Amino acid sequence: MSTLPLATRTTDLVGSVIDSSTSLLAQQRHDIVRFAMGSPAPEAIPAGILHGIADDQLGRPDAFDYAATEGDPMLREALLGALAETGEPTTPERLTITAGGMQGLDLAFKLFVDPGDLVIVESPTYTNGSATALSYQAELLEAPVDEDGLQVDRLAELVEQAGRTPKAIYAISTFQNPSGASLSRERRERLLELSRRWGSVLIDDDPYGMLRFAGTDIPSLLTLADGDPLVFAVRTFSKIIAPGLRVGWVDADPALQHLLINAKQAMDTCTNLPMQRLVGGFLAGGHLGEHLIAQRTAYGARKRAMQDALTEHFDGMARWTDPEGGFFLWVTFGGEVDTEALFEIALAEGVAFIPGNAFSPSKRFPNALRLCFASSTPDRIREGIARLRRAVDRMGSRR
Amino acid sequence: MSTLPLATRTTDLVGSVIDSSTSLLAQQRHDIVRFAMGSPAPEAIPAGILHGIADDQLGRPDAFDYAATEGDPMLREALLGALAETGEPTTPERLTITAGGMQGLDLAFKLFVDPGDLVIVESPTYTNGSATALSYQAELLEAPVDEDGLQVDRLAELVEQAGRTPKAIYAISTFQNPSGASLSRERRERLLELSRRWGSVLIDDDPYGMLRFAGTDIPSLLTLADGDPLVFAVRTFSKIIAPGLRVGWVDADPALQHLLINAKQAMDTCTNLPMQRLVGGFLAGGHLGEHLIAQRTAYGARKRAMQDALTEHFDGMARWTDPEGGFFLWVTFGGEVDTEALFEIALAEGVAFIPGNAFSPSKRFPNALRLCFASSTPDRIREGIARLRRAVDRMGSRR
Repeated sequence: MSTLPLATRTTDLVGSVIDSSTSLLAQQRHDIVRFAMGSPAPEAIPAGILHGIADDQLGRPDAFDYAATEGDPMLREALLGALAETGEPTTPERLTITAGGMQGLDLAFKLFVDPGDLVIVESPTYTNGSATALSYQAELLEAPVDEDGLQVDRLAELVEQAGRTPKAIYAISTFQNPSGASLSRERRERLLELSRRWGSVLIDDDPYGMLRFAGTDIPSLLTLADGDPLVFAVRTFSKIIAPGLRVGWVDADPALQHLLINAKQAMDTCTNLPMQRLVGGFLAGGHLGEHLIAQRTAYGARKRAMQDALTEHFDGMARWTDPEGGFFLWVTFGGEVDTEALFEIALAEGVAFIPGNAFSPSKRFPNALRLCFASSTPDRIREGIARLRRAVDRMGSRR
Repeated sequence: MSTLPLATRTTDLVGSVIDSSTSLLAQQRHDIVRFAMGSPAPEAIPAGILHGIADDQLGRPDAFDYAATEGDPMLREALLGALAETGEPTTPERLTITAGGMQGLDLAFKLFVDPGDLVIVESPTYTNGSATALSYQAELLEAPVDEDGLQVDRLAELVEQAGRTPKAIYAISTFQNPSGASLSRERRERLLELSRRWGSVLIDDDPYGMLRFAGTDIPSLLTLADGDPLVFAVRTFSKIIAPGLRVGWVDADPALQHLLINAKQAMDTCTNLPMQRLVGGFLAGGHLGEHLIAQRTAYGARKRAMQDALTEHFDGMARWTDPEGGFFLWVTFGGEVDTEALFEIALAEGVAFIPGNAFSPSKRFPNALRLCFASSTPDRIREGIARLRRAVDRMGSRR
């Protein structure tokens, strides 16, 4: 029997804790409260509208054909129109349709990262984002996040200590995953300044920016860059329409478009056409605006329900963030609560979350956890937080 | 303004001639005969059945949710059932659902190729397959193909001359793209023997194997390997159902599955769920068998129509292959016909093809071209070949 000649990079491929928790979940009781995955609420997915659009679009003669690699013209036009109505208009030569935000990140790290290159990631950060950088054999430098997002001054110090400048900075600037924090305007300006000075590309991953339920919009890194090519913006319909579509886009310097097309052709040829047409139909039909209004209202209520339940059950034991949008609360226990050990006990109590260490390549957050408030109704949220408290008590009594 | 810090590999990203020809096509007359893209005939795509399945499947509550990274259970089960009825059954732990065959290739090269590794490609070979190897900075060694596929003895000599063994061998063993040739059984056995001796992984890309319209089946490399992990099989529904679905699968050693899942999570999280459900419904509904029978019959007739038209217009000027399945004829001109120069003249005459040089990283086939007989009716094929002859005449008279 042969031994397979694996590439060096396979030692850097890291699995997602989300997956192991999903398969663990599958073995558990059916009424588990799911705070783990960053999925939109099932009732927030406009399935009826999409089903109706499918009936029209998937009956067309070319519906199942190859799409253009840069994206189907119908979707591209509808998206340009939709973005023109937001504060972030763009142009055709900046736009490449991708298989969700994840492929946007894969493209970014493919275009910019050589093995051994330094890449900044937020700490905590999105697991699969840092995993993609690792799949290109980046060396990661974790820079801390507080309630105003990435601590940019601390980042400058860390880079100075590292003695070399980063090739890329991977930032989830708005309603950060997992902390929920948004980078302040001042820090955005300073981060752009540092990126420019270092010659780094600033990969701005923003799946949640359209889901603000409190406070006021902060201009995006893309807007603030004002045409400087250094911002590579990764966007997706996963959180604002539905994750299973696997449709997103990249908004990047026009000089990159031919490289993006070549790289994407060597990844998946093109994004599946039927789902592009569904999203195109959804946008062209003018559904997005109303849909976002309904989602924002619901998610704001869910966040408050979760914070209230946390206050009821964990006051004095833990602290948690107060995001103005997005999907997540980040909970940090005061004492020595090992959230990886807590995970299985919590599952047995009927509630799922993601342990804090999953959000740090160097496992810096053993006493923290991420809760997704978006997927559950307020009643279920209250039930889930009560269960979480019972799990913490059970773990404490085991010692 | 910043200068973007591109990775070294971007110099190895090559564009597909297919794309440039597609955009050229878009500017041409509407009745162009399209022999360029390797697309199923529009009327061969079971759009009505898929539309009906969409009506059922996309109305289900979880239709637009994230899918499991290894693939939706419904599709996986239906595919295992469908493969059990062919000569190539497999098992769940060998199976990973991908975004078409292209992502299967991206996964293969990601798992096995370090920068500078030697990778064997057929000459001629599938442009985007060799492009993907290049995107991982492989060094390509082109090994010639004849009417029995890859010349395996010649390959052994070339590897000896190279002075080092290949990390991977990329083979399109059945109804090869672009030549249409199939690797003989004897050569398959010998190729497996060489791969085993060299410690190479044998990437078996087989999009067309189910589309045999003449001759008898040859056991696949996977079957002949008899459980040896060295064969990494890449399969897709693009040619047998529809390309726009972007659904395929990898059939590989079970020890690879966790690496495949980790690598795919860092590429696109999961393959879009609605299209997995459509394919699952198509397979579970028992449609594939009958659909393949109809396609094989039609494609056989189209191949003969194309060969007859070639005989009528090019007898003595060119020779062409005689495949027993798949989509393509490979035409080689006897004289000094520059098929890249011919391309634009042919477009003006109303017929599209792909010039031979596109199928060789070192551009070895300046006087050859690939014709896809699958996409056009026999009448259109006759018209297209007549136009091609007029284009050759026009080019000749220009000299």
